[in-house]
Amino acid sequence: MYNKVTPADLAYLKSLIPESRIQVGDEILSDYAHDELSGTENYPEVLVFVTSTQEVSAILKYANEKHIPVTTRGAGTGLVGSSVAVHGGIMLCTSKMNHILELDEKNLTVTTEPGVLLMELAAYVEEKGFFYPPDPGEKTATIGGNISTNAGGMRAVRYGVTRDYVRGLTVVLPSGEVVEMGGKTVKNSSGYSLLNLMIGSEGTLGIITKAVLKIIPLPETSLSLLVPFPTMDEALDTVPKLAASPINPTAIEYFSRDVILFAEDYLSKKFPDTSSDAYILLTFDGAPGEVKANYEKAAAICMENGAIDAYFVDTPERKKSVWDARGAFLEAIKSSTTMMDECDVVVPRSRIADFIKYTHEIAADLKVRIPSFGHAGDGNLHIYICRDDYSSEEFEEILNEAFRRMYDRAAEYGGLVSGEHGIGYAKRDYLADCLGPAQISLMRGIKGAFDPNHILNPDKVFRT
Amino acid sequence: MYNKVTPADLAYLKSLIPESRIQVGDEILSDYAHDELSGTENYPEVLVFVTSTQEVSAILKYANEKHIPVTTRGAGTGLVGSSVAVHGGIMLCTSKMNHILELDEKNLTVTTEPGVLLMELAAYVEEKGFFYPPDPGEKTATIGGNISTNAGGMRAVRYGVTRDYVRGLTVVLPSGEVVEMGGKTVKNSSGYSLLNLMIGSEGTLGIITKAVLKIIPLPETSLSLLVPFPTMDEALDTVPKLAASPINPTAIEYFSRDVILFAEDYLSKKFPDTSSDAYILLTFDGAPGEVKANYEKAAAICMENGAIDAYFVDTPERKKSVWDARGAFLEAIKSSTTMMDECDVVVPRSRIADFIKYTHEIAADLKVRIPSFGHAGDGNLHIYICRDDYSSEEFEEILNEAFRRMYDRAAEYGGLVSGEHGIGYAKRDYLADCLGPAQISLMRGIKGAFDPNHILNPDKVFRT
Repeated sequence: MYNKVTPADLAYLKSLIPESRIQVGDEILSDYAHDELSGTENYPEVLVFVTSTQEVSAILKYANEKHIPVTTRGAGTGLVGSSVAVHGGIMLCTSKMNHILELDEKNLTVTTEPGVLLMELAAYVEEKGFFYPPDPGEKTATIGGNISTNAGGMRAVRYGVTRDYVRGLTVVLPSGEVVEMGGKTVKNSSGYSLLNLMIGSEGTLGIITKAVLKIIPLPETSLSLLVPFPTMDEALDTVPKLAASPINPTAIEYFSRDVILFAEDYLSKKFPDTSSDAYILLTFDGAPGEVKANYEKAAAICMENGAIDAYFVDTPERKKSVWDARGAFLEAIKSSTTMMDECDVVVPRSRIADFIKYTHEIAADLKVRIPSFGHAGDGNLHIYICRDDYSSEEFEEILNEAFRRMYDRAAEYGGLVSGEHGIGYAKRDYLADCLGPAQISLMRGIKGAFDPNHILNPDKVFRT
Repeated sequence: MYNKVTPADLAYLKSLIPESRIQVGDEILSDYAHDELSGTENYPEVLVFVTSTQEVSAILKYANEKHIPVTTRGAGTGLVGSSVAVHGGIMLCTSKMNHILELDEKNLTVTTEPGVLLMELAAYVEEKGFFYPPDPGEKTATIGGNISTNAGGMRAVRYGVTRDYVRGLTVVLPSGEVVEMGGKTVKNSSGYSLLNLMIGSEGTLGIITKAVLKIIPLPETSLSLLVPFPTMDEALDTVPKLAASPINPTAIEYFSRDVILFAEDYLSKKFPDTSSDAYILLTFDGAPGEVKANYEKAAAICMENGAIDAYFVDTPERKKSVWDARGAFLEAIKSSTTMMDECDVVVPRSRIADFIKYTHEIAADLKVRIPSFGHAGDGNLHIYICRDDYSSEEFEEILNEAFRRMYDRAAEYGGLVSGEHGIGYAKRDYLADCLGPAQISLMRGIKGAFDPNHILNPDKVFRT
């Protein structure tokens, strides 16, 4: 179906792009053959570091004519194989398109190239007194990648996800045509929302070369509350009560002691409290008076619902120890085992406790370790199935069985396959099972409208 | 291209739906031949009042096989002809699907049929202590219509638009298949966002038969500030400063004295102040302390930027007089003239003043009255071109020229054709001009994937 990259193709690419930004064969580092969880692995035939919309356009036009697959890669921090060139072909790396182009204080937008890292963008706007609220755990991901997976993060309870902050996109279509979707406008009821279709499409519909993002005034202050509960049930039963009360929390996170202990080991650093089985971590943003009123109400709700205490995370040391640990959960679990894979289901907020208990049942039944933590306020859980001492073959079998049970149960609860990590290559069949043939067929039709030759990141999201 | 409804078709429809809910020919009231601005007019051949997903599915399956066009209509409050059956065929009216099905306090969702009116939904959730923030001016529109145009409204500055409150949709596809998009989950990165594609698709891709909407805790208090300015420039220059300050306003509205005078006439009721040329109306929601801190800061910013005064709209009488007037602007302008048409452009917030001035230039140049008001905080303007004493032919010519100039200028400013009213039948060519052939071609491809026989609301949004 696809053509291999020939010497003639390579010569053409070199006529478009300086040789110093093109790598072939052995020149390509193994990093470019996998993403962060590395379950999916394959090398591209050519790796091109693009620097402009024009370059992307010229390459796509050519690849489309020649039926050569093209995979876009940002920082490669994905977890489901979206940025892996499973059919070889050309990999376009956006890491050199890393300029922040404009901060528009009147329209409250920041315009950026796709290869800018989330942490760079966040720091840039903060320095100017503004705030980019989306806060996915992986701060070294690119903005282009965040948009392509509709990344969520911890502040979604109050501020929403990446989708809610994308105002406009410059997109190169597989034909090489360049289109502007949206812009600096706040409202938009002007035809089908191609903008929202691009967001979360994992590089399969077009390549984002510029993004106009919404920013907001920087909140005057931010404070967290760490609340230990005797049991998971008491902790998670409190979450809907917090969400339904007018305390406007920025984040409501849940984790259990075992995950904190991994983080302590991983960071070689003590967490402020590890005496309880279950913890809720709340954050509040805003004017000092507002934050105080809200966290006092929140603490009272927690105490009424069985909390052991409610610690203010106010000193710089305490803030650092809590947030360093929270930020390290994924890496800490990863370093606790030989290999792992993850499940990023999202369920209605009311079903989180049931779902976590179900993963404990699966762990006992399949004799496998399944630690988890989660964005409790969003019903988005991060569940890790650890290989530990199993052989790859044994683990493969356990993994498939565990995933099957979890995704089935999520669907039963009205949940979905992915809350924020996307579908990529690894979760395609679970998505197909969850949504059913009619919706997958609509997605295939949409793919055909954007990319009739299926050159862009083929076989991702659904089987081509 | 399309087939007419035959007696055999009618007999089949009557086998599906009780006769009392089917109207044909002269039985169909003229209301069902147009919408609120009535520039587009045509009767459907059959009007069916549907009551369930199953009925919608059975009718669509049949119409799709027989190539009979189907137009969905809610309350008919649209302004661009979206709900007019321009090709005849079957009209499905959702007004009897008017039940609120569930309020889920744990997941903060309300599940509703599409024919529920916005004002009914708002009152229902408010009574239970919750809040549905989207607040389009037309309170007698249906929720299904609001979703289909991605209606915006006044509270968008703080809370966003209808899109931001749609968690899940039950959609009947033209094939008759029923699909569930999204659900009660907060986050979703599970494949292309068909949900977001449906939102704002104006009944051309599928028929919404159920919606799961996000609600939030009811703010404890709400207060408005009416701020007169000596000139439009001073008023509108203050808007970006308000938006960039951490005062978290719910709404920032702009209007000029002439529009207030129309409303006074229309309502036979005095507005609290008509001594100034230009007004900004601000609203704040939240806990009393927070609201007070925010409106004090806002008043200070306005006074620093040339405001004449800043009136608290706090007594029930004052609230009523201000909001009744604001709510009546469209009707008041309509009643000031023989006929009118409207332009609902959205431009970057920083260009509102320039754009309104440009409409004044057009008015002078074309010798036509063009009153306007706007959601200044969103850059979304509602501009009315009034026929007054011109003949229909003269008006048609003026209208086309005025529209052409306005949409061209909006595009120049990085704006879009519609902020919240949609494209429908009336604005198709302006949309095509604004977006260009590549994006319209993508929309056509998407339409083809959902509706290969083009039976659903044909010739809307773009020419079929």
